[in-house]
Amino acid sequence: MLRAAIELFNRKGYDATSIGDVADELGVTKSAVYHHVPSKDHLLAQALDEALDELEATVARAAAADGSAYVRLRGAVRHSVEVLVDHQPAVTLLLRVHGNSETEQAALERRRAIDARLATLVGDAAAEGALRADLEPELVSRLLFGMVNSLVEWYRASGPVDVEQLADAVTAIAFEGLDAPR
Amino acid sequence: MLRAAIELFNRKGYDATSIGDVADELGVTKSAVYHHVPSKDHLLAQALDEALDELEATVARAAAADGSAYVRLRGAVRHSVEVLVDHQPAVTLLLRVHGNSETEQAALERRRAIDARLATLVGDAAAEGALRADLEPELVSRLLFGMVNSLVEWYRASGPVDVEQLADAVTAIAFEGLDAPR
Repeated sequence: MLRAAIELFNRKGYDATSIGDVADELGVTKSAVYHHVPSKDHLLAQALDEALDELEATVARAAAADGSAYVRLRGAVRHSVEVLVDHQPAVTLLLRVHGNSETEQAALERRRAIDARLATLVGDAAAEGALRADLEPELVSRLLFGMVNSLVEWYRASGPVDVEQLADAVTAIAFEGLDAPR
Repeated sequence: MLRAAIELFNRKGYDATSIGDVADELGVTKSAVYHHVPSKDHLLAQALDEALDELEATVARAAAADGSAYVRLRGAVRHSVEVLVDHQPAVTLLLRVHGNSETEQAALERRRAIDARLATLVGDAAAEGALRADLEPELVSRLLFGMVNSLVEWYRASGPVDVEQLADAVTAIAFEGLDAPR
């Protein structure tokens, strides 16, 4: 049921989707849906929790890993790509949330905490001297994870690029850049 | 009126915004709004045209500019950043469109044509030998302009980073990468 709800929220928009639409999608009655979840907001909260739990775990694992901050940052980028692909519908929904309800506000709060931990990791890698010194860590973090997050809008796991190739491409562009090696 | 409508569409979502909301925002009557525009869809179309006209002009200018494909690609990235900042509300709306109406479908069609021209430019720069050869131009184009487009969700022109610094940061990360120079 959660899968069907997330798919509808992403396709039609949360506001334009009703519990009746979720029931129709599943071929069941509205009361069958209400037997499992008390409200549409409850489905949204479950979907956002799925994405946030995974992203928080990824960032926590990266922060606690062995190695330099640079190695941990590269790991965080790579594992974020994997989470986005593995939980693409839920993360897509999360990234489209703009704080129009208490549930959405709570999700944005958790997202900001994740972003802050990633920005700290970028700052630590910069402090090690591993990153170019002319860019602010917060700006770097925004653009780096902006590139990562953008993939939910176009990536298709059934397409020609598998998740490892995608993670390789993201880390190669971000850390080594597009310029041909000299 | 278009400014107020775009701001409401971005804040509340297009579906959740009514012509009455636009009128309230402007402190006028609904019939005053209908005196200027026949429908909410018409406001959406105007907003999307604003963003698409600017992006198309930027890509056309980049394609027609002097210099190598690499120089033209860097220019396209830089000028895209400038258009996104100068027309941030309209571009934000465009990037959130998912094809739920004929107007949205037409906008997505124009967006795909812009993306295709940018991918061609990436391919031309790769064919010159200016870009690393291990990544597919289409994948590079998706990630590169994914990073560029992501800025509409967080950038504030009134904040500490001006548009030139932002364009510098995007081009530096994309082409030279985050790694400290060796």
